[in-house]
Amino acid sequence: MRPSGRLFDQLRAVKITREYTKHAEGSVLVEFGDTKVICNASVTEGVPRFLKGQGQGWVTAEYGMLPRSTNERMGREASRGKQGGRTLEIQRLIGRSLRAAIDLKKLGEFTIQLDCDVIQADGGTRTASITGACVAMVDAIRYLQRNKQLTTDPLKQLIASVSVGVYQGQPVLDLDYIEDSNAETDMNVVMTESGGLIEVQGTAEGAPFNRAEMNQMLDHAEQGIAQLIELQRQSLAE
Amino acid sequence: MRPSGRLFDQLRAVKITREYTKHAEGSVLVEFGDTKVICNASVTEGVPRFLKGQGQGWVTAEYGMLPRSTNERMGREASRGKQGGRTLEIQRLIGRSLRAAIDLKKLGEFTIQLDCDVIQADGGTRTASITGACVAMVDAIRYLQRNKQLTTDPLKQLIASVSVGVYQGQPVLDLDYIEDSNAETDMNVVMTESGGLIEVQGTAEGAPFNRAEMNQMLDHAEQGIAQLIELQRQSLAE
Amino acid sequence: MRPSGRLFDQLRAVKITREYTKHAEGSVLVEFGDTKVICNASVTEGVPRFLKGQGQGWVTAEYGMLPRSTNERMGREASRGKQGGRTLEIQRLIGRSLRAAIDLKKLGEFTIQLDCDVIQADGGTRTASITGACVAMVDAIRYLQRNKQLTTDPLKQLIASVSVGVYQGQPVLDLDYIEDSNAETDMNVVMTESGGLIEVQGTAEGAPFNRAEMNQMLDHAEQGIAQLIELQRQSLAE
Amino acid sequence: MRPSGRLFDQLRAVKITREYTKHAEGSVLVEFGDTKVICNASVTEGVPRFLKGQGQGWVTAEYGMLPRSTNERMGREASRGKQGGRTLEIQRLIGRSLRAAIDLKKLGEFTIQLDCDVIQADGGTRTASITGACVAMVDAIRYLQRNKQLTTDPLKQLIASVSVGVYQGQPVLDLDYIEDSNAETDMNVVMTESGGLIEVQGTAEGAPFNRAEMNQMLDHAEQGIAQLIELQRQSLAE
Amino acid sequence: MRPSGRLFDQLRAVKITREYTKHAEGSVLVEFGDTKVICNASVTEGVPRFLKGQGQGWVTAEYGMLPRSTNERMGREASRGKQGGRTLEIQRLIGRSLRAAIDLKKLGEFTIQLDCDVIQADGGTRTASITGACVAMVDAIRYLQRNKQLTTDPLKQLIASVSVGVYQGQPVLDLDYIEDSNAETDMNVVMTESGGLIEVQGTAEGAPFNRAEMNQMLDHAEQGIAQLIELQRQSLAE
Amino acid sequence: MRPSGRLFDQLRAVKITREYTKHAEGSVLVEFGDTKVICNASVTEGVPRFLKGQGQGWVTAEYGMLPRSTNERMGREASRGKQGGRTLEIQRLIGRSLRAAIDLKKLGEFTIQLDCDVIQADGGTRTASITGACVAMVDAIRYLQRNKQLTTDPLKQLIASVSVGVYQGQPVLDLDYIEDSNAETDMNVVMTESGGLIEVQGTAEGAPFNRAEMNQMLDHAEQGIAQLIELQRQSLAE
Repeated sequence: MRPSGRLFDQLRAVKITREYTKHAEGSVLVEFGDTKVICNASVTEGVPRFLKGQGQGWVTAEYGMLPRSTNERMGREASRGKQGGRTLEIQRLIGRSLRAAIDLKKLGEFTIQLDCDVIQADGGTRTASITGACVAMVDAIRYLQRNKQLTTDPLKQLIASVSVGVYQGQPVLDLDYIEDSNAETDMNVVMTESGGLIEVQGTAEGAPFNRAEMNQMLDHAEQGIAQLIELQRQSLAE
Repeated sequence: MRPSGRLFDQLRAVKITREYTKHAEGSVLVEFGDTKVICNASVTEGVPRFLKGQGQGWVTAEYGMLPRSTNERMGREASRGKQGGRTLEIQRLIGRSLRAAIDLKKLGEFTIQLDCDVIQADGGTRTASITGACVAMVDAIRYLQRNKQLTTDPLKQLIASVSVGVYQGQPVLDLDYIEDSNAETDMNVVMTESGGLIEVQGTAEGAPFNRAEMNQMLDHAEQGIAQLIELQRQSLAE
Repeated sequence: MRPSGRLFDQLRAVKITREYTKHAEGSVLVEFGDTKVICNASVTEGVPRFLKGQGQGWVTAEYGMLPRSTNERMGREASRGKQGGRTLEIQRLIGRSLRAAIDLKKLGEFTIQLDCDVIQADGGTRTASITGACVAMVDAIRYLQRNKQLTTDPLKQLIASVSVGVYQGQPVLDLDYIEDSNAETDMNVVMTESGGLIEVQGTAEGAPFNRAEMNQMLDHAEQGIAQLIELQRQSLAE
Repeated sequence: MRPSGRLFDQLRAVKITREYTKHAEGSVLVEFGDTKVICNASVTEGVPRFLKGQGQGWVTAEYGMLPRSTNERMGREASRGKQGGRTLEIQRLIGRSLRAAIDLKKLGEFTIQLDCDVIQADGGTRTASITGACVAMVDAIRYLQRNKQLTTDPLKQLIASVSVGVYQGQPVLDLDYIEDSNAETDMNVVMTESGGLIEVQGTAEGAPFNRAEMNQMLDHAEQGIAQLIELQRQSLAE
Repeated sequence: MRPSGRLFDQLRAVKITREYTKHAEGSVLVEFGDTKVICNASVTEGVPRFLKGQGQGWVTAEYGMLPRSTNERMGREASRGKQGGRTLEIQRLIGRSLRAAIDLKKLGEFTIQLDCDVIQADGGTRTASITGACVAMVDAIRYLQRNKQLTTDPLKQLIASVSVGVYQGQPVLDLDYIEDSNAETDMNVVMTESGGLIEVQGTAEGAPFNRAEMNQMLDHAEQGIAQLIELQRQSLAE
Repeated sequence: MRPSGRLFDQLRAVKITREYTKHAEGSVLVEFGDTKVICNASVTEGVPRFLKGQGQGWVTAEYGMLPRSTNERMGREASRGKQGGRTLEIQRLIGRSLRAAIDLKKLGEFTIQLDCDVIQADGGTRTASITGACVAMVDAIRYLQRNKQLTTDPLKQLIASVSVGVYQGQPVLDLDYIEDSNAETDMNVVMTESGGLIEVQGTAEGAPFNRAEMNQMLDHAEQGIAQLIELQRQSLAE
């Protein structure tokens, strides 16, 4: 029995709100249950120095949590003067995942910067960020297309992400905070709409896990991500 | 004529939403037109070292803007490794203003930390922050009272803040971004519910201003702040 | 009665010494009683990146205190690895004030950097800095004119600054440290030689202040600044 | 055909040298082919603040690369003033992995700090680090036992790590730099001596990977790690 | 012939002004020709953590240059966020030298912090700093003695410092900036009043130097430092 | 009697291993007894900004210690976010010394970066670094010559370095850690193969030293460095 009463393979209520703020080229509020993340996509002309003159674009991401998005206030990273290891790890993951969704050559010399800022955290902030940022990125691409700055479609495929884990011996889908902080194993999966794997990051928090559990978790992730991608499609069709 | 069509002494639509996020002891979304700020109040036992053993509490504030809360993306302060001068100036102002609302002796050895994070900016983010943070602080005090951690009422008075300025030769109230970036003079005022002045910070951006303009701006601020405090009261009565 | 025995509207002994150090294009030691600040103006060709190609100049300022300029030694900011919020706030104020004295278009693509370093502090270091830096800036302009690098006069007007406050219920002019640390209200005012207001920054340290007190403080500031500008003129005429 | 001529499931020559430097309680040079890492284990009494008084120990890790351990010189992190995201990610992984090998309760209030410093890099530095650090940690435990500071054996199980990937469509074991920089998929696996999974971190660098490829990679990893653990045992038996 | 017309073994005009600022327990302006340094000594009770409970005191130093103490403006270290290598090297030298003048056991658990801030630089700022700081330290000791906080005399001996060098093939004493920036060899010497060597730091800037030149430089330094110590004595006798 | 049983003027066993790692243009492991330092020389085209367009090259150095190269673990500088004063002082010394060995004009617009990383410390790490880095630099020059990027020989002379000191009243050569931490005087000397002095840095740790001791130390250094240079020659001849 899960604390939330959900089935083992059941997602939380997921909601994707586009045009959430007014300035960004793509702006999405994504909610996985009580986890709420603002994902803003900003387009700029030009690329970072290491890509100059190669005729391709770039996609990158930054991640942050409001100090009181969590149960106990965390110190503000801007005031401590550096981003923590967890933050850097997550924003590298988001950037890498979104670059897998796009043909950088077709994007041309534009940079899309994704900012994922967690307003309220209840487990799964990185997977919600990736799922929301993908929609914001599509809106940013559409913005470039509407403005005739881009005549091709650099989007290769939608991607989405969900967490899975082993909780009280049972593989479960989309862990909330209570499950996450007590899980034996925690795994984040990123997949494409055609079912390809982009990232698999599994960690034994307590006992090691075995291949059978790994397979069950991946099964859960596959069907959860399929649902998320369907929700992205519906949102983008509005 | 103001760009928004407002009267010279007219506030934007102001909205105060309490219990905006679920973790903080006080959590307010404050909107001054298109300016939206999340104000979270966090209570912790104990005080900073310089106050230890004096039997009094402390109130302090931090301020941040989401990178894409503005028209052009600003660099993330956490990633640049330091808070800019403007940020530090604003958070010092917020903290100072809110300490004027409270009797620190009556608060006892608790610290209330206000986090004001701008989700969307359209001028007046610091005045909206102060106005919203005051409501969040009251909720944090009520939290302590409900939990019997506090038996007195440390709130001396509500405070609120608004900007005034000289725009095209005319003193106006509550400048939005278009006015703010073209104003000859910009002034932020913080007042108590009984009409006392807490902070007056006026800056000539173009031509110097004179005593007559100063007085008209203060008149506008007085009546604007009276309305804001009425809105705070209504919100707190809900 | 003021601790120093001064009248309510009486400045401390003010002294302006030009050519105080030998390397800077303008170098002033300014003394407001026991407050002593070295104000050096440095001229460089070129402007910061954000102004390139606009055919205008720039004026900016930095501020620091020697660690033992104060009664208790303060940590050295260079060694702590960052400038504090108060320092940033003050140097932003100095820069903004001095830009109001000058026509940046007429300056051409030169940058004047003002360094205000407090040798000994006894209250009013920021107002002394502004007052002294204005003289140093004029010397830097004259240097450019002597060298035929500048054929116009970019100085629009002299500016000067003084603090006022409410001390034991009484509006007073030019607070020294004892008054400053016990004042109910502290206000810094910057004005032009023609009496225009550039900056008004008033803060209630204890009780709020009212419009009548505000007006008396501004009256004191007006006459004090008029005297300071007369002293600047005399110094520059030598 | 692999660039090195190795079989698809063949490790590079692996060498573990204990007592490599003289000061550390455990000091190992680990070589995976041309990848060479010094793994030093340091024992200190006491634990970090967040664990104080809980009667348990702690294991943590730091990772660094000599600036010229790579083909092109990398900037020295100490001189740039911060550790990069990749470094933080790797040292978090090493620490997490080694904590899975040990019963922190049985360790008592000691901290074992692992320092993994890459002398020469040729792919797989993080997996070599984990494999070598485990041996250094065992030596540090033995040091405590010899000194009678520890009377129990906190080691639960040996762990080791290896990289696997998809190179030119073919799942392969223990990628060297040439393979690593051209692989479609790169995956790092950490396992226990009893075959349990501790960490699985797979990333599609080019095309997504599928479940079949994932399973083949895990098969390779399993047998590679079994060999590594045998080498650890032999080394520790000397 | 030296640019200044001085004899090879002639010091610049040296001036030591005590009680230069009013807050510090010892405050000296030291001038070696156009080089001017404020040396403030601050006394605090207690010692750094690494000395706690050993019944001894500590002497340490910090060094800084005003940004425009030099011919071209240098960036402010506080604003760049770190002290440069040269600064750290100099302040370590000053601290080490002054600790040689004092019996830390007799000082008891007090810390004397020396701040040497260069107001105007013309070569030899570190040697002037050491020479001036020694006088400021003596005044700080006398302050403790006057206040009955210290009943012994921890001063073992006066120390002073001067630069010597090889300029155009000729060993010379007390180089000014023009000589310093063109010298083949530059050497800083710190000695006690009884003629013992505390520090010798010689660097070949161009051609190597030989033992004969080294000896001539040390001869110059010996007699220059004897004069400086005589000046310190006279100053302290006033 | 020295703790190691060595004669007063006897070096420790010194070993120079070239081609120690495979990526660097010059890579040396230098051992002075138990002190072991990896000295890597990296060649890049171009020079730092302050030398651009002057047709000359540059040589610079960085220095680091592995955290557990010492008896007690030192904090990792990369993780503390800055290099300490001792580190900066040493790397400035190494760079200065090596620039004395080379004709920067003849080097042309190349930069040689020396990285000296201490693997194991037992006193004299800076002198070993200089001695080893000189050999690595020669290998880097040969690399440029082999590649026809350099047709001249910019090496003016070999340089080497050794420490001398006064230990229990006796001048001794090449102090190990036990001697170094108990010496009355510690002096580092850098000399050329023709016997010229490049650097002399002597510090009285306890009692002052006199001219006679200074001369004996320099005598020791002269003959020790002559031996070191012979070892460099032999190594380079292999």
